[in-house]
Amino acid sequence: MLEINFKKGFGSDNHSGIHPHILKALFEVNKSHAPSYGTDSITELVRKKFCSLFGNNAQPFYVFNGTAANVLSIKTLIESWQSVLCSDISHLNIDECGAPEAIAGVKLIPVKSNSQGKLTPEELEKHMIRLGDQHFSQPGLLSITQPTELGTVYTLEELSELHEFAQKYQLKIHIDGARLANAAFYLKVTFKEILQVFPADAVSFGGTKNGLLGGEAVLLWNPDHIKKFKYVRKQNLQLPSKMRFLSIQFYTYLQDDLYLKIAEHSHMMAKLLEEKIKGLPHIHICYPVESNAVFIQFPKKWTTSLKENKFFYIWDSQHWIARLMTSFDTTESDINEFQSSLLQLSEKGVNNEI
Amino acid sequence: MLEINFKKGFGSDNHSGIHPHILKALFEVNKSHAPSYGTDSITELVRKKFCSLFGNNAQPFYVFNGTAANVLSIKTLIESWQSVLCSDISHLNIDECGAPEAIAGVKLIPVKSNSQGKLTPEELEKHMIRLGDQHFSQPGLLSITQPTELGTVYTLEELSELHEFAQKYQLKIHIDGARLANAAFYLKVTFKEILQVFPADAVSFGGTKNGLLGGEAVLLWNPDHIKKFKYVRKQNLQLPSKMRFLSIQFYTYLQDDLYLKIAEHSHMMAKLLEEKIKGLPHIHICYPVESNAVFIQFPKKWTTSLKENKFFYIWDSQHWIARLMTSFDTTESDINEFQSSLLQLSEKGVNNEI
Amino acid sequence: MLEINFKKGFGSDNHSGIHPHILKALFEVNKSHAPSYGTDSITELVRKKFCSLFGNNAQPFYVFNGTAANVLSIKTLIESWQSVLCSDISHLNIDECGAPEAIAGVKLIPVKSNSQGKLTPEELEKHMIRLGDQHFSQPGLLSITQPTELGTVYTLEELSELHEFAQKYQLKIHIDGARLANAAFYLKVTFKEILQVFPADAVSFGGTKNGLLGGEAVLLWNPDHIKKFKYVRKQNLQLPSKMRFLSIQFYTYLQDDLYLKIAEHSHMMAKLLEEKIKGLPHIHICYPVESNAVFIQFPKKWTTSLKENKFFYIWDSQHWIARLMTSFDTTESDINEFQSSLLQLSEKGVNNEI
Amino acid sequence: MLEINFKKGFGSDNHSGIHPHILKALFEVNKSHAPSYGTDSITELVRKKFCSLFGNNAQPFYVFNGTAANVLSIKTLIESWQSVLCSDISHLNIDECGAPEAIAGVKLIPVKSNSQGKLTPEELEKHMIRLGDQHFSQPGLLSITQPTELGTVYTLEELSELHEFAQKYQLKIHIDGARLANAAFYLKVTFKEILQVFPADAVSFGGTKNGLLGGEAVLLWNPDHIKKFKYVRKQNLQLPSKMRFLSIQFYTYLQDDLYLKIAEHSHMMAKLLEEKIKGLPHIHICYPVESNAVFIQFPKKWTTSLKENKFFYIWDSQHWIARLMTSFDTTESDINEFQSSLLQLSEKGVNNEI
Repeated sequence: MLEINFKKGFGSDNHSGIHPHILKALFEVNKSHAPSYGTDSITELVRKKFCSLFGNNAQPFYVFNGTAANVLSIKTLIESWQSVLCSDISHLNIDECGAPEAIAGVKLIPVKSNSQGKLTPEELEKHMIRLGDQHFSQPGLLSITQPTELGTVYTLEELSELHEFAQKYQLKIHIDGARLANAAFYLKVTFKEILQVFPADAVSFGGTKNGLLGGEAVLLWNPDHIKKFKYVRKQNLQLPSKMRFLSIQFYTYLQDDLYLKIAEHSHMMAKLLEEKIKGLPHIHICYPVESNAVFIQFPKKWTTSLKENKFFYIWDSQHWIARLMTSFDTTESDINEFQSSLLQLSEKGVNNEI
Repeated sequence: MLEINFKKGFGSDNHSGIHPHILKALFEVNKSHAPSYGTDSITELVRKKFCSLFGNNAQPFYVFNGTAANVLSIKTLIESWQSVLCSDISHLNIDECGAPEAIAGVKLIPVKSNSQGKLTPEELEKHMIRLGDQHFSQPGLLSITQPTELGTVYTLEELSELHEFAQKYQLKIHIDGARLANAAFYLKVTFKEILQVFPADAVSFGGTKNGLLGGEAVLLWNPDHIKKFKYVRKQNLQLPSKMRFLSIQFYTYLQDDLYLKIAEHSHMMAKLLEEKIKGLPHIHICYPVESNAVFIQFPKKWTTSLKENKFFYIWDSQHWIARLMTSFDTTESDINEFQSSLLQLSEKGVNNEI
Repeated sequence: MLEINFKKGFGSDNHSGIHPHILKALFEVNKSHAPSYGTDSITELVRKKFCSLFGNNAQPFYVFNGTAANVLSIKTLIESWQSVLCSDISHLNIDECGAPEAIAGVKLIPVKSNSQGKLTPEELEKHMIRLGDQHFSQPGLLSITQPTELGTVYTLEELSELHEFAQKYQLKIHIDGARLANAAFYLKVTFKEILQVFPADAVSFGGTKNGLLGGEAVLLWNPDHIKKFKYVRKQNLQLPSKMRFLSIQFYTYLQDDLYLKIAEHSHMMAKLLEEKIKGLPHIHICYPVESNAVFIQFPKKWTTSLKENKFFYIWDSQHWIARLMTSFDTTESDINEFQSSLLQLSEKGVNNEI
Repeated sequence: MLEINFKKGFGSDNHSGIHPHILKALFEVNKSHAPSYGTDSITELVRKKFCSLFGNNAQPFYVFNGTAANVLSIKTLIESWQSVLCSDISHLNIDECGAPEAIAGVKLIPVKSNSQGKLTPEELEKHMIRLGDQHFSQPGLLSITQPTELGTVYTLEELSELHEFAQKYQLKIHIDGARLANAAFYLKVTFKEILQVFPADAVSFGGTKNGLLGGEAVLLWNPDHIKKFKYVRKQNLQLPSKMRFLSIQFYTYLQDDLYLKIAEHSHMMAKLLEEKIKGLPHIHICYPVESNAVFIQFPKKWTTSLKENKFFYIWDSQHWIARLMTSFDTTESDINEFQSSLLQLSEKGVNNEI
């Protein structure tokens, strides 16, 4: 018998497993044979579902992970001699092992994000230099993460301002939406309403971090981009053969507002976590809790003990900031256990050996 | 309720679904949280399983599909100014949308395969020209498909000769083993015995076509290759986050000889199919049936009718050769139905309108 | 004092040096300072000269060598998931060390050329398969060499037929014109007349093999291609800084019909060479002499002795065919010396030791 | 007759032409035929010359420009999933149109340089994070510019410290030496002495900015790098055919210490320029003048008038800093004219309309 030492924690929303509805759906479509590479009937059904949520011309393309969704969006939208304006703390810039550079050939321009991890027109403006100069990689794409890497959410007003900036310089726009449902839930708007103020050319729509076994959707609208992406995906190693098993995951995720329910749950758990620990001594909540992440500062010497209780990552080792992620399966017990652990440490005080 | 018009056929072994044991295993590991990106306990368990089958130093890396397994093997083994000797009918050459060229930067040398779809030292030898000439992409890698695209299996003697050829020119070697278990079953040898006569530097070990939801393993032995592949995989968009769900599939596939049982079943079904139709009028079996494929020639006008019964692809439209693939879930009934369809068409004769 | 053991021969038109007029021109512009990267007054003058020869919208871009001219033309005209239809014996296919694959990411489709080294619609047609199939690199560009690698010249009729083929499949077209002036001279037509029947999207217009120190021009007409090439050239390491020294070479080459005079001289020398040796015993002229190349078969054992007289390359070692190239500085004496050498060998006979 | 409106200035050392000795040498080797692609006798001679200056195992490879020298050095030394530590103001980072990313696939890490444009171990150290983390592009190469983009020169002590840093992290090292001769002259050391304290794996040794018509040499020592570069150069479009004309330029440049004489002259002219203007009102010399560049601040409204006298570039438009470059052909008259212009403007004062 297989021994597995799995354990709940706040490490990442990709540490959690498959949402029960989604796993059940995998069972249901595991029958008979289906044509491969996206020509099955489910894939077509999901396309219609995406259209209802993202506009009639939306075309989803499934890829295997978020790196692929982001990098192939870039590769489809701009040329290798163009650059991508993105946050200095974006996943694109610091967690993709140079994939945007190696695969799309582009240069990234890491733009200083504000105290909430957001890009602002003012900072972006500073990088709009040497336009038309052949020696200089030309800004071509604005990529934002929504919610941001710090768990904050761009408001519609902020999005609108960023769109205005992009229009001014004829930049293409991309949303890294690994947790886009969380943003929609928080803002209490539909995806369409987000796109009305920020009409992205490409959206990386996340699945893996929201309860899927694995899979992301790249959403495109422009017919030229759609035509191109078909080949870009295959050539860049991202065409799934047994496509029905990706499609059914997205079908289930989008059906009956499951995506919103998951977003709501993970957000409520994050708010509960915030609430339960924000009064505690020696604890500082670093950023507004607007999605499913809580960033906290705490005495460094508590780390081992806390991690044993619930695993998490140190996000910023210089300022000793931890990132606590909730997910569809986070429970009140999980939070209470973590709170207890903090309380215990707090009682011992920060000056004693632990 | 979701309407799905799935239907059994002989289209491809990726038209079939997930083997019940494997799907069940997905359920079993879908609990609690597990660290991502391969640091979970299952992934380590499967590594040991692979070592027991492929040698103690074997290191498996999971990737999402066969294109990735093949292309990243190439990228790891040779430089962009080297070329890959492969069969003119290899998947690598004609079904990857130029991915080896675009992603690894290499040139493919399509070598004429023999009547059984196999590479021979004689044909390979013709391409060993201009060695050391900076104007000419330098042969660096021999890639074979085992079983071949025609469903035939290289014998140990043939493999040994190819290895000798590779050694003579210091070529690296790669096996596209999307259905490698079928070859091992047919030859009645272990994977280790295959590697003894043909010590590949990299093996693309197939899962998707053998009952997995999706996933392939790249096997490497050389520590330098292993060190390199870690980053090559991530940078080339192939690092799965919820790795336990890939690992458990391979764990189950390799456990209790399931891989051999699936290989046996699909082969037996292919032999049964061959047997049931080889005597029929107007039917010609094109190649020895050594794995899970049966290639047949039949009157072109029967095509629509036959495909309605059981879907398949025309492999060679010039000579009107169809490829019939069996899989883990092919049943005698499937075969009998197809035979009946053939018999009916045969009775009507080839000269009548159908 | 520098000892140089240079020696006249028929090795290649890049074995010869700089045409005296061109070297003189380098002197003349070597004064004072000039803005770099193409903003000098000479570069603008030459652009006008090119327009007068290649049409008003022609835009020349200088690059350093023929590999760059060809590969960057491809990179500008098609996407990495498209393929290039080119002759199996084209420089592109066998002499660029896989640069088209590595730099443009494309797949080459080597098409069997006819007995004169020319592409024909019939052979090209065979490769127009699987259009729209995402698994298959999509034919996107037809690239011809004019004159061909065998020194033959496509007639206007042949070009017209190839253009019709390209139009039928919406292929972009490219001319590798490393010796294009030779073709124009032979056909007694202008470059514009060539473009009327074969309206190339890009032309690699050769300089190096026609008496320049070094440099090729890529000619483009489409504004989108022109806009793109500016950055493609820089990013692909091909932007010359002291551009005036490239421009003045082309200025001189195109001024006063020098390009035609050089083409005429090298062709006349090739015809003289053909004439002087075609009657000799054991000598076979392999292809029509239409530019500045003469391909001959001769007894293999004569090789060392002949090469000592005038160096040349064995083009086809299987059939022992030598390629003799003439250039702007080939003289009657050179030819007479080679003839004498052949006569001497001929007198000794083929059966004696040499 | 060709009308050329060339004009002396301080725009760049690539605005000047060809040094008379070098142009003369081009004449001298423009005779007869020479084998192409580096197999001529001159190329071999220059290799020996380089060995005498850079160590016995030095292997020079000529490429066409500085972009190529730098990018192909990187491509040879590290993998695409590694990153290059370079100055934030390095040519590599801001003037190559993203070529390092597109061609070598690497990520650049722009490191804050100090007030003299130099990298320091302290700043570099900050970027040595996440070593071994597959999600993070791994620091693999330290590239410095000597002299720096600000015309300052790393001392042997500074170089030694940087080498120590590189060794600590097993980084490869590269020198962008577009003006390396200037550094050697300023430090009064030989190239060998520089390499003793900073044993670079690759040096981009500049020619174009020092009086050549065009051409740079990449110097390598490690046999594996040398073997690799041969193909890397060809595949990346940088193999010159008429190589003798590149080789002879370097031969002449290195012969009789011409490289030192040019470095001395351009440096002396820069010092003279500094001296003549440093006392003037409203003028500020920004950095130590250690090679052939003088950076000055002056009233913005003088710009047009000054540029008409002697052209130059505004290096930093935020602080209105101009870069004045001297070269082998800069004369005292040039400097006096510029001084006069400054004096005139100065007399008019900064508050009057000009």
